[in-house]
Amino acid sequence: MRNLKAVLRYDGTDFAGWQVQPGLPTIQGALMEALERITGETTKVVGAGRTDAGVHALGQVANFKTSSNIAPRNLRRAVNSMLAPRIRIDDIEEVPEEFDARKHARSKWYRYSILLAEFPDPLLCRYSWQIRAKLDMERMQAAAQCLVGKHDFTSFQGSAGKNRSPIRTVYSLDISAVPAPYPTDQTNSLLAIDICADGFVYKMVRNIVGTLVEVGKGKIQPQHMPSILDARDRDEAGPAAPAQGLCLISVQYS
Amino acid sequence: MRNLKAVLRYDGTDFAGWQVQPGLPTIQGALMEALERITGETTKVVGAGRTDAGVHALGQVANFKTSSNIAPRNLRRAVNSMLAPRIRIDDIEEVPEEFDARKHARSKWYRYSILLAEFPDPLLCRYSWQIRAKLDMERMQAAAQCLVGKHDFTSFQGSAGKNRSPIRTVYSLDISAVPAPYPTDQTNSLLAIDICADGFVYKMVRNIVGTLVEVGKGKIQPQHMPSILDARDRDEAGPAAPAQGLCLISVQYS
Repeated sequence: MRNLKAVLRYDGTDFAGWQVQPGLPTIQGALMEALERITGETTKVVGAGRTDAGVHALGQVANFKTSSNIAPRNLRRAVNSMLAPRIRIDDIEEVPEEFDARKHARSKWYRYSILLAEFPDPLLCRYSWQIRAKLDMERMQAAAQCLVGKHDFTSFQGSAGKNRSPIRTVYSLDISAVPAPYPTDQTNSLLAIDICADGFVYKMVRNIVGTLVEVGKGKIQPQHMPSILDARDRDEAGPAAPAQGLCLISVQYS
Repeated sequence: MRNLKAVLRYDGTDFAGWQVQPGLPTIQGALMEALERITGETTKVVGAGRTDAGVHALGQVANFKTSSNIAPRNLRRAVNSMLAPRIRIDDIEEVPEEFDARKHARSKWYRYSILLAEFPDPLLCRYSWQIRAKLDMERMQAAAQCLVGKHDFTSFQGSAGKNRSPIRTVYSLDISAVPAPYPTDQTNSLLAIDICADGFVYKMVRNIVGTLVEVGKGKIQPQHMPSILDARDRDEAGPAAPAQGLCLISVQYS
């Protein structure tokens, strides 16, 4: 059996998330179905990040085993032809038998996009969270720095994921203004919250972003962040940010 | 009656174009319906560019007359609340009674986006034309320069628009590589074709882009462009580019 590693991107808007769910459109399900039609085998596809419904990816990584001897670039073309334009595989390569896209991921980079505007932007609304309020970026940056490092992230953990250790290491958490992707755009302001960590508890990025937005609005003090972490209580942190602003940018391996 | 000028943006994907058509979702129809519900009056909305089905806008300009005395910024908020996120008005201001968004437009700037990639990009496919072939940008630029200036654009005119003069002045026609709107993107290449003219015959931008792509593929010689113009025959130019790559960026007034 060959072990193949794929790098892929998708628009999560019309999917019920990465993970297979009977009767619902999922990324994992679409990939497994395409591979089965091409290779004739039932193949389990392992993804580095199990993105939620509505979350996008530019650099999701997956691996799967196959006894098919189709060349990687032909397999890539066949899957892309079948799934375009909803999912696109950018690269497929053969990797050592033991490689596991999820277990061997050293870190993942997620970006959350916020549009500061009175009303949603028709061309950005699938890919950002529109916020009407002014946000104090300095306060948000100060709060973000409290989360960098190795912490117990129970206060930022969604209820579905409470069976694993809540300890994670955040390598970086940066908030920056980014240029709009369009040539004229005087009334908008785009914020990117980039977070890189060795792993994420369930809904961690969206819960962190929702909390940072409360900080930006002045509802939570930046100096209160350490006690939110210490509380290990989901009720202490802010609400979850909506799915459509989130994108898995890349996954790093050793 | 006050005359109000609005600057607006929309994602054209789910619309049958600007112009009202009975039973179909149109931008003009959505605006007129919203204004009627807010002001209680039936109001004709005049648009600077009558964009086709699937074409987007970042800076469409429209005007309409109303006897309502709602302040422009309140009217803007009311329309946006009703139409979000499909259409957004960025600005409304009162203008002199004689102002006409279509007749008084001095020039319009359209951008056409091309993605050079073997397969469509899930996050860009609503806003670009994906082309598999390599395109020779130098040849395309040489061909584009032949179209700058005052010409008879009959060869680039769609069949629906043949009742008006086909003479238009193209002020600029530039082809450039633009950065992708996403942080990681090694396999893609985005081309922007920016065209500014005093007016456009029906489907002129899409017919010009389709022809320039034929030039980029080597199927039409750049030096053949003047004779395509001279022929005044639609069959001499290339096919129309698809709607989703086109966006009305802005409209200029004196």
